[in-house]
Amino acid sequence: MAVYTEVGDGELEAFVAEYDLGAVVSCKGIAEGVENTNYLLQTASGNYILTLYEKRVSADDLPFFLGLMEHLSRRGLRCPTPLHGRDGRALRQLCGRPAAIVTFLEGLWPRRVNPRHCAAVGAALAQLHRAGADFAGKRTNALGAHAWRQFFATASARADEVKPGLRAHLDGELNWLATHWPRDLPAGVIHADLFPDNVFFHGDEVSGLIDFYFACTDFLAYDLAICLNAWCFETDGSFNATKARLMVSAYVQARPLSEAEFTALPTLARGAAMRFLLTRLYDWLNTPAGALVKRKDPLEYERKLRFFAQSALPGDLGLAFADMPSGA
Amino acid sequence: MAVYTEVGDGELEAFVAEYDLGAVVSCKGIAEGVENTNYLLQTASGNYILTLYEKRVSADDLPFFLGLMEHLSRRGLRCPTPLHGRDGRALRQLCGRPAAIVTFLEGLWPRRVNPRHCAAVGAALAQLHRAGADFAGKRTNALGAHAWRQFFATASARADEVKPGLRAHLDGELNWLATHWPRDLPAGVIHADLFPDNVFFHGDEVSGLIDFYFACTDFLAYDLAICLNAWCFETDGSFNATKARLMVSAYVQARPLSEAEFTALPTLARGAAMRFLLTRLYDWLNTPAGALVKRKDPLEYERKLRFFAQSALPGDLGLAFADMPSGA
Repeated sequence: MAVYTEVGDGELEAFVAEYDLGAVVSCKGIAEGVENTNYLLQTASGNYILTLYEKRVSADDLPFFLGLMEHLSRRGLRCPTPLHGRDGRALRQLCGRPAAIVTFLEGLWPRRVNPRHCAAVGAALAQLHRAGADFAGKRTNALGAHAWRQFFATASARADEVKPGLRAHLDGELNWLATHWPRDLPAGVIHADLFPDNVFFHGDEVSGLIDFYFACTDFLAYDLAICLNAWCFETDGSFNATKARLMVSAYVQARPLSEAEFTALPTLARGAAMRFLLTRLYDWLNTPAGALVKRKDPLEYERKLRFFAQSALPGDLGLAFADMPSGA
Repeated sequence: MAVYTEVGDGELEAFVAEYDLGAVVSCKGIAEGVENTNYLLQTASGNYILTLYEKRVSADDLPFFLGLMEHLSRRGLRCPTPLHGRDGRALRQLCGRPAAIVTFLEGLWPRRVNPRHCAAVGAALAQLHRAGADFAGKRTNALGAHAWRQFFATASARADEVKPGLRAHLDGELNWLATHWPRDLPAGVIHADLFPDNVFFHGDEVSGLIDFYFACTDFLAYDLAICLNAWCFETDGSFNATKARLMVSAYVQARPLSEAEFTALPTLARGAAMRFLLTRLYDWLNTPAGALVKRKDPLEYERKLRFFAQSALPGDLGLAFADMPSGA
């Protein structure tokens, strides 16, 4: 929730003149998004998003992210597409930062998630995985299972400030995950951060997916497990098995899960809870109270982690392989 | 720089359905603006600004602000115009807060002010004063000269934390201003906060004025004195007499200043520096470092205050009554 870089009008006009977009009509900083600076740019030819990449995004990864969005758009997925300047380049510099203009997506992200949203997001995720199947780029998941132990080391000494016993709890969980994490599931490009604020809807229909700046190469089913975390809990912390079943069923209709993937879902969801718990814990400990970026409660994910730790089987999440359409 | 209130998609759609705007296409929180929550709302019929009024704006003042914008628009000033719902009302409730939809203005506010901007803003300010001349509403300037001593009392005890000696300096200045403040200048509706981020341009032409939420009844020339503070200093703190002359000349072409108003400009500018110094000082002392709202340096206005204290005559600001077109 921030504009980190103020773009001067002269700099903006010179930047936009590198594209065939017509004159700048208006440009407003957008409050959403915590990693980068985003402007809603209006020109004579329409609406666009102008993004300046701030230091939390590695400049080396930008060609992967922009190339992926372009690839997915060409394959028919509704997501932002980078525009190319007259020199052919999609990535350039503005105010000393890497910057790009992408297409604007209509729609609203759902503040209150209903079961129809969950079905729609399951289908959209499968579509993303299919569209990404022939994308040549690779990017290691910097926040993947192999990295959690090391990432925890940056926060573990102060974990008990957030909740007494949290350090020992996470230490035990990390050991369990290291032993039980699947080794050989279908992998490919995943979104890795498909939370409600990254999915736009028109009514119950998905109008587009945004924010590919955590995208990477990892198990496809792990992406679905992230969505189980992000979409299927109620605000009181209870897990909504109906939402989970609708999401997974809709996914499977577009991309069947193998039995190994299906069986691994509870473990993958437990790992996904760990991944978001770790980054929230780190941010909580390293962001002053009341800072520019709103801190997200790490303990929300500690509760989700406990839930998935007690749900070893897909049936514990309300999922049955036999029920899956096309016999998953 | 904040969205204080998150509006749910269902609530938003129900709210917009009260107007004849067509379906919601998108809605993005805007980072600019520190007093209220602003969304750029796109519907089937175009772009609008949706504002939720947060606690720093008194609900009792909203009919004045909205009525003024509507009046000024009707008189041809380019500024946001409140939309009326099908029930005729412009002001209603959203998420427990007063809320309104206003028209969207094109243009960019100037991050680097040049002399042509200053001339254009002078002309636009005069146009605002003329257009507001027959507006029936009245609103006391809550941050006007009569209120400074009392406002200072809320911050004076800690003023020296910001700069040693600041308390005594401001105390002396307030005494001087109380004695020298003009008593009988032409008064009317003023904007009272016409800083560069509230003036949109297409190139060197003003495309509109925004943010009327400090508007009130006060000396018209005081509004011009606020603009001398807000537009005519360079980033190194030096006063640009060329900008000042262009601004005042352009103002006078549309609304002549009396000799009394002209002579009072240095004193009015000194008071305006005090007004912004006081609110910045208060915010500085009462906002945690690194908070959601960026703190603005109060000492910028302490330097401006010193400058105007040493500039008793219009000539000290580069202004000559005889030079004013139409013999001011």
